[in-house]
Amino acid sequence: MSDQGAAARLEQLRALAQAEDLRPFLRRAIQLHPSDLAEVLAAIDGGARARALAELPVETASKALAELEGRVRHPEELLRAVGPDYVAELVAELPSDDAAAIIRDLPPEEREAVLSEVADRAEVDQILKFPEDSAGGLMTTEVVTVHEHASLVEAIADIRRQSAEDDALYQVYAVDGARRLKGVVPIARLIVASPSRRVHEVMEPPAAAVRPEVDQEQVARLMARYNVAAVPVVDERNRLLGRVTFDDVVDVVEAEATEDLLKFASVSPEEDLSAPWTAAVKSRLPWLYVNLLTAFLAGAVVYVFQGTVSRVVALAVWMPIIAGMGGNAGTQALAVTVRRLALQLLPRDRALAVIRKEVLVGAVNGIANGVAVALVAAAIGEGWVLGLVVLLAMWGNLVVAGLAGASIPIVLERLSIDPAIASSIFVTTFTDVCGFVLLLGLGAWLLL
Amino acid sequence: MSDQGAAARLEQLRALAQAEDLRPFLRRAIQLHPSDLAEVLAAIDGGARARALAELPVETASKALAELEGRVRHPEELLRAVGPDYVAELVAELPSDDAAAIIRDLPPEEREAVLSEVADRAEVDQILKFPEDSAGGLMTTEVVTVHEHASLVEAIADIRRQSAEDDALYQVYAVDGARRLKGVVPIARLIVASPSRRVHEVMEPPAAAVRPEVDQEQVARLMARYNVAAVPVVDERNRLLGRVTFDDVVDVVEAEATEDLLKFASVSPEEDLSAPWTAAVKSRLPWLYVNLLTAFLAGAVVYVFQGTVSRVVALAVWMPIIAGMGGNAGTQALAVTVRRLALQLLPRDRALAVIRKEVLVGAVNGIANGVAVALVAAAIGEGWVLGLVVLLAMWGNLVVAGLAGASIPIVLERLSIDPAIASSIFVTTFTDVCGFVLLLGLGAWLLL
Repeated sequence: MSDQGAAARLEQLRALAQAEDLRPFLRRAIQLHPSDLAEVLAAIDGGARARALAELPVETASKALAELEGRVRHPEELLRAVGPDYVAELVAELPSDDAAAIIRDLPPEEREAVLSEVADRAEVDQILKFPEDSAGGLMTTEVVTVHEHASLVEAIADIRRQSAEDDALYQVYAVDGARRLKGVVPIARLIVASPSRRVHEVMEPPAAAVRPEVDQEQVARLMARYNVAAVPVVDERNRLLGRVTFDDVVDVVEAEATEDLLKFASVSPEEDLSAPWTAAVKSRLPWLYVNLLTAFLAGAVVYVFQGTVSRVVALAVWMPIIAGMGGNAGTQALAVTVRRLALQLLPRDRALAVIRKEVLVGAVNGIANGVAVALVAAAIGEGWVLGLVVLLAMWGNLVVAGLAGASIPIVLERLSIDPAIASSIFVTTFTDVCGFVLLLGLGAWLLL
Repeated sequence: MSDQGAAARLEQLRALAQAEDLRPFLRRAIQLHPSDLAEVLAAIDGGARARALAELPVETASKALAELEGRVRHPEELLRAVGPDYVAELVAELPSDDAAAIIRDLPPEEREAVLSEVADRAEVDQILKFPEDSAGGLMTTEVVTVHEHASLVEAIADIRRQSAEDDALYQVYAVDGARRLKGVVPIARLIVASPSRRVHEVMEPPAAAVRPEVDQEQVARLMARYNVAAVPVVDERNRLLGRVTFDDVVDVVEAEATEDLLKFASVSPEEDLSAPWTAAVKSRLPWLYVNLLTAFLAGAVVYVFQGTVSRVVALAVWMPIIAGMGGNAGTQALAVTVRRLALQLLPRDRALAVIRKEVLVGAVNGIANGVAVALVAAAIGEGWVLGLVVLLAMWGNLVVAGLAGASIPIVLERLSIDPAIASSIFVTTFTDVCGFVLLLGLGAWLLL
């Protein structure tokens, strides 16, 4: 379908979902893919959304609810509209990971009311024990297991018993009598292999089993590395707890990319991209104040050199050029280093080599730009001594930029501080201060 | 396994792979997961890598070669070591997407030599027709199809014939006599559903079929949206061409995130994170020159106001503070807008509302910071007029920052220019120039 067609259809369904008479909407909604229905529901206001979810058949409503993002899901609104019993009924329809995600979004005082109505409460509690962004918090506890010594005929009969309609069943897990994970059987093998073979003959060693505490980014990286659509989660005695599927992880990787870019630009990662202006002010103003404090440092350097600036006012013209170039070069080095740290491409014993490389890049780029500014200074008749001052200041500042851009995030990481957040404020403070000290200090020495 | 254990094992294998006698390495290599073997091969030098690949059994070597990233795969080196016949033999072992990826990395003059030895050349050629970053360029042409009217018993027999050992077989495709895509059957359904049913009774409408021209990011988004591990690729007459699986797409999402951050920081996205310093200079120096040109604009503003600065030298102290804060606030607005554009969260008719929101955020943050700097100016005895000047300059510059940060990427996107690349250079130029005009202009007006 063309994008225009999709947009028009969305608009039409949106209107129907807000109409007085909901029946035309309900008739069409039950034919939609849950993700498409969720898109329609996300585009209408909270009251209409709660009403539509209350009127839809439980099976349709629960799937759509699971596809809604936390931000627009607003289970409180739904709670108010339909009460905890109905919310529990919706939650009960869902796999345990989706159920846990919805319950996590509930206000704490309402959680118990819903949880007490959920039939497989133990499974949901199991997931709620772990942080939202860990393998344990993302996993579903509905896994299909077969005994390692069963024949494939027995295994297939067993799978039929356990899984009514799980389209996301990519692999089944071979376990022993104590539910310890012994191997992984890609589901396709059950069809292709001869039915007389046994599970342990066709299973593979679990390439990428994880403990529930493992971070979601690590899980994503394992899936990409071993090309597996699901990763089993096991406890400290290797007993199978659940599995994380790739679809949870693609969302994770996109969300982390957004977070990393926002942090890099000194925006709190909690700022929702569609947040209202009040939330944006709240997320950004603290960082602007941090930046203001550091900017006073740069101002203080100029304050110290006021006498020099008032006698050689041409230096004021070069201030933003030297500082701006240092900031830009520092940000370049910073971005490369932050990304290497995020992708775990920077082993500890390579840190010094990376800093050395960035200093070298800064020195070479500093010469190239220093000569350029010296030529411009000469061309506009500011004399060769001022030309030499701007050359040296530019060169020195780009060396400092490489040094600060590479080492600040590495040091922050060693101190267990997230190297992405606000690094850029510190790097630009460094280059501002050093740039002014070099420019105005050299100016005071050579020009006065 | 612990990370320490993994590192030690890697180190040991690396040593074995570079030893005179390769036999101990070969014995262990054939037991490794292809991804782990690829990690070992990536960590040794090109000559040793080519020698190890030449000595390994064809099946092991080809799988490891497919897992090597383009950067370290260096098929030219391998070609020199083993000749095109053996490379073709390795490539012939692989699914068509991996084969195409390796052939893409070959120098153009060697491609024909290898391609002419590949048995299913037509399939590889089919993929090579499309850009590397499109659905067609990522797809594998090995897909398992069943006739829409077949019974499940017939379908399973058919699947056995078509797929020897495809662990990534998550879904099979229901087609008509002309290979037109009619539906998708999750592989688990074939096991769970009653064997007497027919394919068209258990299939689902293909939620996310794409044309081969579709960009890889779009494919990733469809998979996440519809929770599918594979997306079928169809031509303009809906005939099945191939499929893209999720594992190609997780890599894509990570790579795009790196690219976006580097572009944001004015680093060419082609700069490999582990590139040598010469490559880093080549990728960054052009952007530094662009930045230098724009910095001259900011310098020119100061040049115009030299008279003002020489008479009220305190203004020079406030220059880096006003400009730096504008740059920081502009970068915040820019990051949020760039990310919204990248995730397609910014419909065209919402552009004005977004710009208005960012201007409002700038105005509010501008007042908060303007009052702060005015108080500092008063506290250090610079007088209330200068306080008013810095207040107004800060306020105006943060409004400009919001305006520029939101509108520059939106305008670039409308002009079909990538909004991420170098936006930050233009935004900070804007805030530097406007900051100096406001500060020095107001200073000239109110203080002289």
